[in-house]
Amino acid sequence: MRYDLAEEKVFKDPVHKYIYVQDRTIWNLINTKEFQRLRRIRQLGTSYLTFHGAEHSRFSHSLGVYEITRKIISQFERSRYADWPEEERLLCLCASLLHDVGHGPFSHSIEDVFDMHHEAWTCRIILEETEVNSVLRTVSPDFPEKVASVICKTYDKPIVISLISSQMDADRMDYLLRDAYYTGVNYGTFDLDRILRVLRPYQGRIVVKESGMHAVEDYLMSRYQMYWQVYFHPVTRSSEIILRQIFRRAKELYTHGYAFLSKMPDALVALFAGTLDVNGYYRLDEALVQTVFMQWTEEPDELLAELCRRFLHRRLYQYITMDQRDEALWTRIRHAFGAAGLHPEYHLEVDYPFDLPYHVYRPGTTDLEDKPPILLLGDQDKLEDISVKSDIIRSIAGLHRGKFHLYYPEETLAKQKYYFDSEIRQLFGL
Amino acid sequence: MRYDLAEEKVFKDPVHKYIYVQDRTIWNLINTKEFQRLRRIRQLGTSYLTFHGAEHSRFSHSLGVYEITRKIISQFERSRYADWPEEERLLCLCASLLHDVGHGPFSHSIEDVFDMHHEAWTCRIILEETEVNSVLRTVSPDFPEKVASVICKTYDKPIVISLISSQMDADRMDYLLRDAYYTGVNYGTFDLDRILRVLRPYQGRIVVKESGMHAVEDYLMSRYQMYWQVYFHPVTRSSEIILRQIFRRAKELYTHGYAFLSKMPDALVALFAGTLDVNGYYRLDEALVQTVFMQWTEEPDELLAELCRRFLHRRLYQYITMDQRDEALWTRIRHAFGAAGLHPEYHLEVDYPFDLPYHVYRPGTTDLEDKPPILLLGDQDKLEDISVKSDIIRSIAGLHRGKFHLYYPEETLAKQKYYFDSEIRQLFGL
Amino acid sequence: MRYDLAEEKVFKDPVHKYIYVQDRTIWNLINTKEFQRLRRIRQLGTSYLTFHGAEHSRFSHSLGVYEITRKIISQFERSRYADWPEEERLLCLCASLLHDVGHGPFSHSIEDVFDMHHEAWTCRIILEETEVNSVLRTVSPDFPEKVASVICKTYDKPIVISLISSQMDADRMDYLLRDAYYTGVNYGTFDLDRILRVLRPYQGRIVVKESGMHAVEDYLMSRYQMYWQVYFHPVTRSSEIILRQIFRRAKELYTHGYAFLSKMPDALVALFAGTLDVNGYYRLDEALVQTVFMQWTEEPDELLAELCRRFLHRRLYQYITMDQRDEALWTRIRHAFGAAGLHPEYHLEVDYPFDLPYHVYRPGTTDLEDKPPILLLGDQDKLEDISVKSDIIRSIAGLHRGKFHLYYPEETLAKQKYYFDSEIRQLFGL
Amino acid sequence: MRYDLAEEKVFKDPVHKYIYVQDRTIWNLINTKEFQRLRRIRQLGTSYLTFHGAEHSRFSHSLGVYEITRKIISQFERSRYADWPEEERLLCLCASLLHDVGHGPFSHSIEDVFDMHHEAWTCRIILEETEVNSVLRTVSPDFPEKVASVICKTYDKPIVISLISSQMDADRMDYLLRDAYYTGVNYGTFDLDRILRVLRPYQGRIVVKESGMHAVEDYLMSRYQMYWQVYFHPVTRSSEIILRQIFRRAKELYTHGYAFLSKMPDALVALFAGTLDVNGYYRLDEALVQTVFMQWTEEPDELLAELCRRFLHRRLYQYITMDQRDEALWTRIRHAFGAAGLHPEYHLEVDYPFDLPYHVYRPGTTDLEDKPPILLLGDQDKLEDISVKSDIIRSIAGLHRGKFHLYYPEETLAKQKYYFDSEIRQLFGL
Repeated sequence: MRYDLAEEKVFKDPVHKYIYVQDRTIWNLINTKEFQRLRRIRQLGTSYLTFHGAEHSRFSHSLGVYEITRKIISQFERSRYADWPEEERLLCLCASLLHDVGHGPFSHSIEDVFDMHHEAWTCRIILEETEVNSVLRTVSPDFPEKVASVICKTYDKPIVISLISSQMDADRMDYLLRDAYYTGVNYGTFDLDRILRVLRPYQGRIVVKESGMHAVEDYLMSRYQMYWQVYFHPVTRSSEIILRQIFRRAKELYTHGYAFLSKMPDALVALFAGTLDVNGYYRLDEALVQTVFMQWTEEPDELLAELCRRFLHRRLYQYITMDQRDEALWTRIRHAFGAAGLHPEYHLEVDYPFDLPYHVYRPGTTDLEDKPPILLLGDQDKLEDISVKSDIIRSIAGLHRGKFHLYYPEETLAKQKYYFDSEIRQLFGL
Repeated sequence: MRYDLAEEKVFKDPVHKYIYVQDRTIWNLINTKEFQRLRRIRQLGTSYLTFHGAEHSRFSHSLGVYEITRKIISQFERSRYADWPEEERLLCLCASLLHDVGHGPFSHSIEDVFDMHHEAWTCRIILEETEVNSVLRTVSPDFPEKVASVICKTYDKPIVISLISSQMDADRMDYLLRDAYYTGVNYGTFDLDRILRVLRPYQGRIVVKESGMHAVEDYLMSRYQMYWQVYFHPVTRSSEIILRQIFRRAKELYTHGYAFLSKMPDALVALFAGTLDVNGYYRLDEALVQTVFMQWTEEPDELLAELCRRFLHRRLYQYITMDQRDEALWTRIRHAFGAAGLHPEYHLEVDYPFDLPYHVYRPGTTDLEDKPPILLLGDQDKLEDISVKSDIIRSIAGLHRGKFHLYYPEETLAKQKYYFDSEIRQLFGL
Repeated sequence: MRYDLAEEKVFKDPVHKYIYVQDRTIWNLINTKEFQRLRRIRQLGTSYLTFHGAEHSRFSHSLGVYEITRKIISQFERSRYADWPEEERLLCLCASLLHDVGHGPFSHSIEDVFDMHHEAWTCRIILEETEVNSVLRTVSPDFPEKVASVICKTYDKPIVISLISSQMDADRMDYLLRDAYYTGVNYGTFDLDRILRVLRPYQGRIVVKESGMHAVEDYLMSRYQMYWQVYFHPVTRSSEIILRQIFRRAKELYTHGYAFLSKMPDALVALFAGTLDVNGYYRLDEALVQTVFMQWTEEPDELLAELCRRFLHRRLYQYITMDQRDEALWTRIRHAFGAAGLHPEYHLEVDYPFDLPYHVYRPGTTDLEDKPPILLLGDQDKLEDISVKSDIIRSIAGLHRGKFHLYYPEETLAKQKYYFDSEIRQLFGL
Repeated sequence: MRYDLAEEKVFKDPVHKYIYVQDRTIWNLINTKEFQRLRRIRQLGTSYLTFHGAEHSRFSHSLGVYEITRKIISQFERSRYADWPEEERLLCLCASLLHDVGHGPFSHSIEDVFDMHHEAWTCRIILEETEVNSVLRTVSPDFPEKVASVICKTYDKPIVISLISSQMDADRMDYLLRDAYYTGVNYGTFDLDRILRVLRPYQGRIVVKESGMHAVEDYLMSRYQMYWQVYFHPVTRSSEIILRQIFRRAKELYTHGYAFLSKMPDALVALFAGTLDVNGYYRLDEALVQTVFMQWTEEPDELLAELCRRFLHRRLYQYITMDQRDEALWTRIRHAFGAAGLHPEYHLEVDYPFDLPYHVYRPGTTDLEDKPPILLLGDQDKLEDISVKSDIIRSIAGLHRGKFHLYYPEETLAKQKYYFDSEIRQLFGL
């Protein structure tokens, strides 16, 4: 069943140079329509509006995660580590390739508004009637369930799960390198070859040989910098806010029976109505979303039309920064906005990047169950949390930023500035 | 009017590290909706189906062309070359930024089928009632005409035109580097810094200091390799053929009054009817095209539906290669295809990459008027065609390949194979 | 006097792509025999014994420091910052080019043993009768003094000094990038272009625009990693120890009137006798040192001969690591070594990398006068120490390692192991 | 005997990222004094005087050649190619590591003057009483002979020889990449990974899968550019001429019984006397040569002293270029030089880079025996010379340059210019 392609296939990849496919199952999965759909979903959502190079898709990233997983396993096999369950190879490869197959268009925004989870969709695409499912079933009838359980972290061998999902998994390693490459920033580069060389399967988990500590430090620093320089960039946040507001407004209008001028695609109706199935989900890509937004720029509902124009023409909200949470002030602003004829719930958005699903490595928090620590394997097979050994990791472990960002439409406020008192005018520089 | 931004703006760019904007006009042009639309047009059309990394847009490329032009001019100004007309700076920058603004979705295919030219659309967008036009008019009432004339190559100073359009212009330098970066191939890299250092304005044209000959050789070799390795890659050609066939079939159906199941967007109707204006053109982006293709996968016209599925799911035509032109054979095949119930005009497509608008440097051909030679400036200000001095350029100048590719739907043929005689079966490996 | 070369000269450089020379004075300085001598002094001393790629010379580095300084100044001039004293350009360039001209062969070791300082030699070479001095005097009679005073940090404009010598000066920026390039490690890369863009001359010092904070964080992290991964690498330390011991032993022998078998070069005799002048210093390069070591491999003094063989054949001392200072134990070991017929003062060397001239950034220490903090220039021209703003810099500021390394000749100990008690045997794994 | 290191050792390498050692024999060879000596021999001779970054040693290059060989073999083994003789692995690795061990200081110049060949010295070091020989003998008593015969191309399996020495061998692949990296030029980069993937052992030779043709084209273009841009750079040639003249003059003086002021090292005396043995050869490194040159700068023989100063202070000969061979003119110049009191045989040197041991790929020449063509393995296992298939390789195959360079000491000529007639004055621009 393994290595069963007569000749290995390669994809040219800017990050890993080449991506090697040696198994027919992998080849067939890549050629399913559900996996090809990832070409129409950007890896970094709206980040291309900040970093114009970041136009790469989840298709590229998924191949990259697969390739890193393949390299790790190939090294484990070459070294014949006793603790590596060799029979899990194909399962690991499939799970790594498919782990993002359920991502929707501009995932984070759409998930927020419609209370969806891409992991759940990934599992549905693997388990329901799809081309992906049919390829997986050729391995064995229960293979789809196994792949899904790895992605849902319920599979009974934690070592398999940790390859795909842990504090230093193939997913993160690929996206840091890939996002750095495509945005053009330096921050995300670290020595992948070195890290791959120091990983060891050990007692049901993947650990790091102690001599590799500095490479891990470097990886974690890259991660830290990428989060604050790229993923949390205020311009990107601004575009995500607008995106979320578009979905929120459209859903609101839909719910209230507003008659859209343009015909809404069935998949979108199903999304609004909560009746989306895998078939509809398949059609929900970023091309569709952008096309609908283009139509909505001419909707009579001026708020929706304006938000869509902002998104398509990149006329984003401005922001001001505050060090402290100040709900009282924000309420006062919202009142003032309402009094001035603005939409308080759209024209002011408070954002605090910290409480997002992305997070900096912090031992000691309650999500330790989900995110087991990175362990160093020292002399006499002693295992220690890396933060015990590394001054630098210990130092950054607890870091967080305390800035609040208030996003708002600058010109809209400027037009109404005579309605505001001097404090608010000063705050927004009007 | 120049350098009039209080503080220069920068864009992070993977190819040039940073792109610097120093003029308010440039900044405002970038922020027009017509320029932002380029984010929804891929630079390399369907190449991402061959090289998955090649997902970058014409937006990125246009910024890159602008940046190279800016660097060239900035060096000309620093060196105070007498032959450089300093007053043309802003004109050059605007023309370089906008030269691709008229590109449509998957340009080369759509232009073939609908007999359009992106240069013509570029000029219309510059001259008609658009945001771009309105920004340009703030410079002077006749500024739009000047910019358009540079792009149409009718401007009366050839040196200005040659910056944007010649055998070694800012456009080509950027796309070779950028396409190499995003595809991940090595071929397109050459020493841009060195080339910029050896360019000289001289008697109304841009020439190259003789000591820079080898850098130009390297650039032309990169170009040669990129054409044959990337731009003419048979898998990319296959996807372009399918794309062209989709447009061709849809237009055919439209012309014959076929009732499309899904509502066709107005912009597309106008394209088919030949009534497209700049407003409609603006809406014609790759998101729209992909969305329509997705709808067409369910059209009752099975040929159109199948072509759209092939494109979206990347199930491309196979190909065989022939060294010689053989019209008689191809006619015979077409007859056989017709007799077997296939669509001869869709199920067989002969492609000969050479006769495409992209072309390798060949002095001595009739298009020398459009493509003036690259001149070396030697001692005593002697000018000579680079191919006189460079053995290697002379050697590759006349190179061309003589391969014909026959593209066809493998599975469709296989199903009908009993209708074919043995010669045809053998030819297609059936 | 400025920009006085008819055509600028360039050097191809792997780190900065090109190094541009625009001033005749700089060109002439590079061509002096004292500056050319830097080609025969390695930038990283014995590091090439650990990282074989690190064979680059102080010549390359000095050109790099010059180039970074030139770029900074060129940007200051282009931006016409009021606080930049434009008349100091040539002084800054000369000082940056020459700041290392007094480095001896394997500087750090030789300076330790002979109580010399390369800064002092730099000033002597600038001020005494040398080709360098004669070039500088063509600028003005007091120009050599000015250049020397910048390097000795007594020049009356601190902003000039800080370009060459501060926590983030041209020297450090070049060596981190260059050493990373030549060793092949990733750690030393940071975004030089970005840092150059955010530097500002301000009230007699160079400060950093607040928006550049993250680039500085990245630079300081690179620095931290380079120190611990490269500069303090235990194998490099081991080779430096051997080098120092060679010098120490030879001086000892010389002082005691030992008759060297091979004729010692005059420059070396002068070094031992403390009578070295600039003329002799000029001849003291690494070629000479290695040649003498080669001769000494055949000296009758077996200790010296053995040390030289160790150095030339890379047979370095082994080491063990201890967390705590333990003078009592070390004294006991030395006694045991003596009793076993070893040379306690040569065969045991305790090293504690922290107390070396290289040091990690630590605000709050007493050397703040020498190392003024990196200041961020915020809104309303507010200046703040970067560690106030940056969590990460604050976190690493106080970091230090507390490991002691005991170096020793493994095989020599092994031969004598029966003389040692069990504690010592266990300690050294005998 | 294979893979016998308990844990593989790695060297950090800038070109290949890491170099992996898996065999004790390889590890021990690296640690011999003869191999360590390569650290004191520069890979590119005097090129560092043109490209200051090119200070890398033959030590680095030798490790690189070893690593490429290791990768090729490892891929052959993984793919289980029938035509690969697996038992030859260690032999190939040793030969690739040691192939340059006999290089002397500034090889090409010294070999010219003293009529030596580094291949011969390589074999002597392998076969005579050395540390290298003693390590090799631990494999088997006849192993040294086998290794030597591979390097001398007399081993009876051509496939083994071709790995180390052919038109596209591990040696060339490493030096092109490495020299490009250290000089900082772009020309030498090609896709090594791709080339490694398309190599196949086939009927006693190494051939290239046809689909890899373009990667080979790229490699050969790199080679072509590196030769003309780097290896034949006129400044490098100038420094080599001076070097050769130093050796020539010193030998001349020695032969005529000149009493050198400074004591000459024994190894040098043996070189002059033609009595050098492996022991003396071992001591003959570039440190020694440079140290002697430094001493000679004060020799009473002004010609020798002047040449040494030129070399150490980089005051090279100027050159003029002539398209045609013109022995009559050159004789006339030499006479004029003699009449003017110059040294005709030193002050004029005609150089024609073409007739050097480095050469561009040209099928059809008489050295085809030594340089078998690169063969493409096409469908049905058809083998063809790559120049049959590749337009570009056919085009450059016959390329050569016809320029003669006349090197001379500019200032010396200038001083005597009144002795010359107007033609000679004009020729040299006096």
